Amino acid sequence: MPSAMFDNVAIVGATGAVGREFIRLIEERGLRAKRFTLLASTRSMGTTVDVNGHPHEVRDLADASFEGIDIAFFSAGGGRSREFAPKAAAAGAVVIDNSSAFRMDPTVPLVVPEINPDDARNHQGIIANPNCSTIIMAVPVFPLHRVNRLRRIVVSTYQAASGAGLSAMQELEEQSRDVLAGKPPKPRAFPFPIAFNLFSHNSTIGDHGYNEEEIKMVRETRKIFHEPELAVTATCIRVPVMRAHSESINLTFADPMTPEAVREILSDAPGVRVVDERRPQHFPMPIEADGADDILVGRIRQDISQPDGCGIDLFVAGDQLRKGAALNGIQIAELLAKA
Amino acid sequence: MPSAMFDNVAIVGATGAVGREFIRLIEERGLRAKRFTLLASTRSMGTTVDVNGHPHEVRDLADASFEGIDIAFFSAGGGRSREFAPKAAAAGAVVIDNSSAFRMDPTVPLVVPEINPDDARNHQGIIANPNCSTIIMAVPVFPLHRVNRLRRIVVSTYQAASGAGLSAMQELEEQSRDVLAGKPPKPRAFPFPIAFNLFSHNSTIGDHGYNEEEIKMVRETRKIFHEPELAVTATCIRVPVMRAHSESINLTFADPMTPEAVREILSDAPGVRVVDERRPQHFPMPIEADGADDILVGRIRQDISQPDGCGIDLFVAGDQLRKGAALNGIQIAELLAKA
Repeated sequence: MPSAMFDNVAIVGATGAVGREFIRLIEERGLRAKRFTLLASTRSMGTTVDVNGHPHEVRDLADASFEGIDIAFFSAGGGRSREFAPKAAAAGAVVIDNSSAFRMDPTVPLVVPEINPDDARNHQGIIANPNCSTIIMAVPVFPLHRVNRLRRIVVSTYQAASGAGLSAMQELEEQSRDVLAGKPPKPRAFPFPIAFNLFSHNSTIGDHGYNEEEIKMVRETRKIFHEPELAVTATCIRVPVMRAHSESINLTFADPMTPEAVREILSDAPGVRVVDERRPQHFPMPIEADGADDILVGRIRQDISQPDGCGIDLFVAGDQLRKGAALNGIQIAELLAKA
Repeated sequence: MPSAMFDNVAIVGATGAVGREFIRLIEERGLRAKRFTLLASTRSMGTTVDVNGHPHEVRDLADASFEGIDIAFFSAGGGRSREFAPKAAAAGAVVIDNSSAFRMDPTVPLVVPEINPDDARNHQGIIANPNCSTIIMAVPVFPLHRVNRLRRIVVSTYQAASGAGLSAMQELEEQSRDVLAGKPPKPRAFPFPIAFNLFSHNSTIGDHGYNEEEIKMVRETRKIFHEPELAVTATCIRVPVMRAHSESINLTFADPMTPEAVREILSDAPGVRVVDERRPQHFPMPIEADGADDILVGRIRQDISQPDGCGIDLFVAGDQLRKGAALNGIQIAELLAKA
């Protein structure tokens, strides 16, 4: 387990679903710092959160100084990142930003440590953490692309409630109770009922008909892979699952690719666990991805709709809060500590 | 609403999820018969089921005679269809079989009334009702194929519990209660927990790596469309939803196809309802497909990964027990009554 040493590590959005996961992972992975500074919006003031067994008061982001902070994990929404991340960077911190605010900024590296660790070096104070669905697809797909260049990706997601925050996770639980009790579900965090239902990801839809989540999967994958022309289409769907995203991925390679080759490449790939047992039908599932660091990959098979042998189908699952968010951010900090 | 008149209509598997839906639809659509004969396996003996407000005793399939029965809706599993459907046909009944037993038999028509009604005429006593996921994809996709020939389909499903029967629907409910109460879910009907989870469809997997459900979607679509070479790849996933299947469908046409053309074709297509409002983000959802006769279609957009303009993405939802099973069977009977 790698261990990094910092002076003062800030967690911005410390009371949110991703902020809590950052703290859990700091403890689990032994990311050491002389001091931890927990920041959140005004409505979280007065809260106390333990880090390594010691209570830390959550302070107001609006009044915070970033002087002396060397790493700041931001997970408090795009608006707060846009306002406070440049201030933190100007004060000398390296911001690892989990929002979408800077991901497509050409001066900001967008990093998945298993894929493009070198990009992290060229930061100017801010490093962006990719979108959760993008990371969960990119980690198992990139090692294949490195061996046999990808021509096209068709992906459909099965996204957990956690991607919309703690309130959405609570809503899934409360609505499920209500429906089981014969009461109508009351949508608040989501625009539609999530209990025993599913719906198109509710980010804004552009004139092209794709929602922002889908466009993130297209553009961010291209940036991380350094493949600005890679053909990707995505359909993002929210499902009544707590915290692991699943994805059905159809790949077209430049040259023929066998399932055996895919299995061999992925069994050695970092951050990936092959779960592909056809007899007991043991494949990636949210309940097994939940809490795991690795992206689970299975249903590896030759796509019979591509008779040239260049097509592969996969099904993957990964913890949205861990590798999809906080773990990837912590790994970026570990990269910086090693550099 | 069409009304058909028969002498004696048998419902085989009358106490199952699809059997109950057959009875509901017979009542709703006014399918008239002088007599209804309800049959099921021995363990359902003693049950009484109402048809049009009149109680009917459920009789043992094993002892049943099919003499005098003109239409027999079979929904009691492939084994019972293989054993009893030929006997019923030999006794003069037309069997409308919801199992997979005869679907790929070249002497048995496989019929979706909106697509290939004429095939129903050439029966030899048995007409097969297609797989639910196949029907739900085929109904909205065929009208497009008729205008602009399909080259390839990539489909990922989000399948409801109902496809595995009443016990699976009860299991989703019971497991959800257990998980919410902090108890471990107990899988019985399904091999894995279904509450707040999802998993690869648990039908048998062949050497090619596809499960039977996926192969049904490939082969049955080809047979219904009369396109024996149509390229189709499918990934079938079970999700914690009660009775409507959803599907993310990526299409490649022979010629360029615009979303506007797709919307126009589908707004006139039988059995389809376009639900595609980008501003309120109102798209197909299981809770709205539930109980509906139409397949809901939305997220209609140009596939940006196909720069030749020949790609279209769709998201659909349809009631697995209605159009996915019983309604399609009733519509076949209505076709026969009209002929």
